[in-house]
Amino acid sequence: MRSPHDTIETTPGAEPTIELWYEVASPYSYLSVMRAEALAAAAGRRLVWRVFLLGPIFEAQLGSSDSPFNRNPVRGRYMWRDVERQCAKYGLPFRPPSRFPRASVLAARIAMLGEDEPWGGSFARAVLAANFAEDRDISRPEVVREILEQVALPADALIARAGEAPTKQQLRARTQDAAARDIFGAPTFFVDGEMFWGDDRLEDALAWPRRDA
Amino acid sequence: MRSPHDTIETTPGAEPTIELWYEVASPYSYLSVMRAEALAAAAGRRLVWRVFLLGPIFEAQLGSSDSPFNRNPVRGRYMWRDVERQCAKYGLPFRPPSRFPRASVLAARIAMLGEDEPWGGSFARAVLAANFAEDRDISRPEVVREILEQVALPADALIARAGEAPTKQQLRARTQDAAARDIFGAPTFFVDGEMFWGDDRLEDALAWPRRDA
Repeated sequence: MRSPHDTIETTPGAEPTIELWYEVASPYSYLSVMRAEALAAAAGRRLVWRVFLLGPIFEAQLGSSDSPFNRNPVRGRYMWRDVERQCAKYGLPFRPPSRFPRASVLAARIAMLGEDEPWGGSFARAVLAANFAEDRDISRPEVVREILEQVALPADALIARAGEAPTKQQLRARTQDAAARDIFGAPTFFVDGEMFWGDDRLEDALAWPRRDA
Repeated sequence: MRSPHDTIETTPGAEPTIELWYEVASPYSYLSVMRAEALAAAAGRRLVWRVFLLGPIFEAQLGSSDSPFNRNPVRGRYMWRDVERQCAKYGLPFRPPSRFPRASVLAARIAMLGEDEPWGGSFARAVLAANFAEDRDISRPEVVREILEQVALPADALIARAGEAPTKQQLRARTQDAAARDIFGAPTFFVDGEMFWGDDRLEDALAWPRRDA
């Protein structure tokens, strides 16, 4: 689970971080994207956003890019009920999306462009909420444009940048990086090189160094 | 998620229960089998043991009776690390089994025979601990015999009963019941007709009626 990136993150004296690897179309990523920033701040860790695409991961590991929740409908039905309960527990709005999963490439590219910008968290939360609390079709460029305008961002410029070759290549490389780290689902967290999978492990991830100390 | 059984369980004034549906060869079932009785007692609910076989469920829903943790080795490697961490968190011993999953039919039949007996919980915990804390081969009748003797039970008589046609038929019916309830993994809990999947939901399941009230 080590990489040059981890080595930098764990340099003594470096700012403590938690990486949140998420997919815009993933229901449990919605929970973590909405919860992580406040919890990370309370734990004294800076949240590092890492958006990626699950489709290529599922394709390589399972032989199909479709969601495992669709491939096993019994598990899928339970998942929607579970997400509804978890949202109620955390006080998050929830409406089951009328289409799942929604194509997330455009929204993911823009989220990636914002990861080191002050607006990154706001855009990520707005996109996931659009998908899982408002049933808006985030696969459509006009909906992505509305979301960008909603959080007061220059929609035309960002949508144009999202379509440029370097942006496309960066998201491909990001997803390859996710695979190289043995990510198999979303959300996934990294704290000091330790990997945690699932919204249920967010608190454990943030408590990790303290327990380890 | 309703069945005649639930109707009985939720009769007003009836003793509050939590059903634990588990599989002897399932790592996350180990966590719940070890934790559930004390937590259920603290929550004022009687624990109802419900052992079943995951293989036929996986076969019907996924097209293979093998564990999804084996079918996706990337996910499987993470699972073992996660179970190790969860055991450390809960103060449970853990040793990764040298073979996974182990054939669980004999142990499951005996666990089922004990579900309404005072020794049911002790035997379930001893079998799961043998598999996941002691790396003993619970698929072998001589190991099951040792476990029965370890908890002071009549090994010969119970192993003989496990091989009788009514016992075999009862476990088949139990597993069919699991499928009919839309169970897709283990452990799974039922509280007042509400289904919760995974050791991570044990506390939520026990808190369910209070939150709902």
